[in-house]
Amino acid sequence: MNGRGEFITFEGTEGVGKSTQLANAARTLKGLGVDFIVTREPGGTPMAEAIRELLLSPRDEPVNETTELLLMFAARAQHLYNRILPALDQGKWVLCDRFTDATFAYQGGGRGVPVERIALLETLVQGEIRPDHVVLLDAPVETGMARARKRGELDRFEQEDLEFFQRIRDVYLERAMALPSRYHVINAALPLEDVSESVARVLTGLVRAAGSS
Amino acid sequence: MNGRGEFITFEGTEGVGKSTQLANAARTLKGLGVDFIVTREPGGTPMAEAIRELLLSPRDEPVNETTELLLMFAARAQHLYNRILPALDQGKWVLCDRFTDATFAYQGGGRGVPVERIALLETLVQGEIRPDHVVLLDAPVETGMARARKRGELDRFEQEDLEFFQRIRDVYLERAMALPSRYHVINAALPLEDVSESVARVLTGLVRAAGSS
Repeated sequence: MNGRGEFITFEGTEGVGKSTQLANAARTLKGLGVDFIVTREPGGTPMAEAIRELLLSPRDEPVNETTELLLMFAARAQHLYNRILPALDQGKWVLCDRFTDATFAYQGGGRGVPVERIALLETLVQGEIRPDHVVLLDAPVETGMARARKRGELDRFEQEDLEFFQRIRDVYLERAMALPSRYHVINAALPLEDVSESVARVLTGLVRAAGSS
Repeated sequence: MNGRGEFITFEGTEGVGKSTQLANAARTLKGLGVDFIVTREPGGTPMAEAIRELLLSPRDEPVNETTELLLMFAARAQHLYNRILPALDQGKWVLCDRFTDATFAYQGGGRGVPVERIALLETLVQGEIRPDHVVLLDAPVETGMARARKRGELDRFEQEDLEFFQRIRDVYLERAMALPSRYHVINAALPLEDVSESVARVLTGLVRAAGSS
């Protein structure tokens, strides 16, 4: 390993198996001798995790959509500059559970926040920084929701209805189609071992491409 | 009282007597039979107060300046749409301890965040909404800091040095000079009873101007 690390994010609607596949990707990198960190959004630093708490706790007070958007990007700024970029600069790869694609999908597609507002904050916080690669775990919304419900109590976001998640999936797929060199769309409705094999293959390819196998 | 309420903010550096003069303004409005609420920034709703906690607590993790800026505006969006605007719509006057002028002064002047970034977020969150009147309590920085220190422990902002607060004062005064119809600059270095009399006179004038004495 030398040079700058690769910044790889994992995206998808509820119940598509992101956590499982992040662990799988981590095992793959470990097997290939790549130095990496695993982190998540919103969160990834103590302060950003505190912001995550504010965002995800169900509360009596209605949350203004601009408040939600700004909290997401506040956590992101903290995470990006205090954790992600320092790791990449040290040559570490970064595997991140969700990033700005999730904001376009959930706040934009899900809640109907105008895309321009999200893009404006993306530029304000990130400048030109984008993930090098996005692993998009894609499955029909019904499949994912059924899995998420089995896991136990739904948080504030998971209480939304199917149409909400359909809009989120649509935004993810549109973004992937618009920039196929960055997005790796994995069919997450297939049996687990097939999904895992696909993800491992993507990661292995990225490591080889980075000339660091 | 009828029609929309007036939105009046109180601004100034540490130790200029904002809390005292807010209470004084409230007494003045009460004496004139005006229906009003008193609130503060960052804060003013349970969620916005939780964001305030995040902002003001000293912590080991360095706070990214964009994170700080976005948290301020996240709290502001929540406060403006869930509390301030509903009160104004009910015909109540709103007395608010700090608002966006403080962001221009503290984050812009104090921390050197580019004014354009603040202005961009002001528009994103507030659209065209601005305070109707700003009562700016102005005093030499040394005077205010000496008073603030007497009050006890200094929070994360108050630990900054004198130059930091000088830049904040400068921005407040520049903004007041640029729009004298909105800003009421009060010399807060005068004896308390003179300051209180000036503030009461300003409030009384605004009530008369609103045709609601």
